[in-house]
Amino acid sequence: MPDARPGAGAIALPGDEARHLSRVLRLGTGARVRVFDGAGHEWDARVVHAARDEARVALDEAVAPAAEPPVRVTLAVALLKGAQMDDVVRDATMLGVVAVAPVESAHVAVAAAGRRSAAATARWRRVAVAAAKQCGRAVVPAIAPVAPLAEALASASARGDALVVCVEPRAGWPAAPAGASAPAALDAPRPAAATVLVGPEGGWTADELDAARRLGARRLDLGPRTLRAEAVPIVALASLWTRWGW
Amino acid sequence: MPDARPGAGAIALPGDEARHLSRVLRLGTGARVRVFDGAGHEWDARVVHAARDEARVALDEAVAPAAEPPVRVTLAVALLKGAQMDDVVRDATMLGVVAVAPVESAHVAVAAAGRRSAAATARWRRVAVAAAKQCGRAVVPAIAPVAPLAEALASASARGDALVVCVEPRAGWPAAPAGASAPAALDAPRPAAATVLVGPEGGWTADELDAARRLGARRLDLGPRTLRAEAVPIVALASLWTRWGW
Repeated sequence: MPDARPGAGAIALPGDEARHLSRVLRLGTGARVRVFDGAGHEWDARVVHAARDEARVALDEAVAPAAEPPVRVTLAVALLKGAQMDDVVRDATMLGVVAVAPVESAHVAVAAAGRRSAAATARWRRVAVAAAKQCGRAVVPAIAPVAPLAEALASASARGDALVVCVEPRAGWPAAPAGASAPAALDAPRPAAATVLVGPEGGWTADELDAARRLGARRLDLGPRTLRAEAVPIVALASLWTRWGW
Repeated sequence: MPDARPGAGAIALPGDEARHLSRVLRLGTGARVRVFDGAGHEWDARVVHAARDEARVALDEAVAPAAEPPVRVTLAVALLKGAQMDDVVRDATMLGVVAVAPVESAHVAVAAAGRRSAAATARWRRVAVAAAKQCGRAVVPAIAPVAPLAEALASASARGDALVVCVEPRAGWPAAPAGASAPAALDAPRPAAATVLVGPEGGWTADELDAARRLGARRLDLGPRTLRAEAVPIVALASLWTRWGW
């Protein structure tokens, strides 16, 4: 519902949502629904037209969606295989990130060609929309195009994000390279925005860690046990919200 | 490897592990392996005999396994459907619990008969063994038989565990019932042992929350967004280890 505005008269639902409404939910004229614009607004609404592939709704009252977390977190996550990436997008949405940035890294074990396609990004966007609906969020995280780590780091710097790196239990955390600024403590002061880097199953390479460290990245310790790659984002976000507030 | 002791000569592997070693890994005499007894000990070892369904190993050096967390946590989790319960046992193992106690509650949506069987418990035990191997833990969490919440609470009290309850975003947390002891803060002092209660998709009933509260249970807040039922244990454990240390 990118164009939702109250008092704008009847609004056409996007094709996917219209089909879901009429074919799956089998809702007709007069049915009460909730609509949200993906940018933090949500309304009670009535269906005023429902056909096979199109539907229109009239917005009534604005409703208060679940509060957003106090830090704007972008999850920059090394590409995972197949459905694992869908799971990460779903869980990161439910855990309140504002964006997911799929990252190519030296140890990524997946063939990147198919994953870089617009179709892959569009699929993750649909997963994020479905997850936002399910968890009561009116914000749908942005899905960035797949990019090399260097690009994700540059984008994070451009946004002024604090950088947080999850490091494998057995990986070394290199000594601060010459010229690196001293990293601040993870907890305080709470940043306004942060990019959280989660590596591939093989871990980040020393060069990759070095590049992040040079930009002042702080290390997030998730204990000495090896976690499943797709569980790391959940554990990392839960740990950060515990420090920063949910 | 429940009977593993160094210097005990050749030790027979349990049937499952022997078959895995000879048929899946296709290891023969002389191969180097790691064995652990599930109670915190791990050794380098050599295969001295490997046949179709049996294998023996000789223990060499003891090795230091991943450190265990500073609090002995039992995860008391309302029964989930099918494979979701396997996922919870796997993730809880990787996140360092000492036991998983599957709990029946008023809102549990699964037919309990099949889940109460010895076969179900044995299956979760196998999942815990596999997860311990994968994450580098030498401790395999105990799997308690499925029991009603009242029994899980009684066991926790008998162990002297601190009680922590994860509460749904929209659920009420009842006022302290008459006679309840004032709950201590979640963070300090760090308990030696704790039981963490994770409810079913429908949430705990007011009576269930009241029973926990009466025993001094503290509430663990996991934010205003509704999480997937099988993600709640991961999020709860990550939040607790962030407070207590990993």
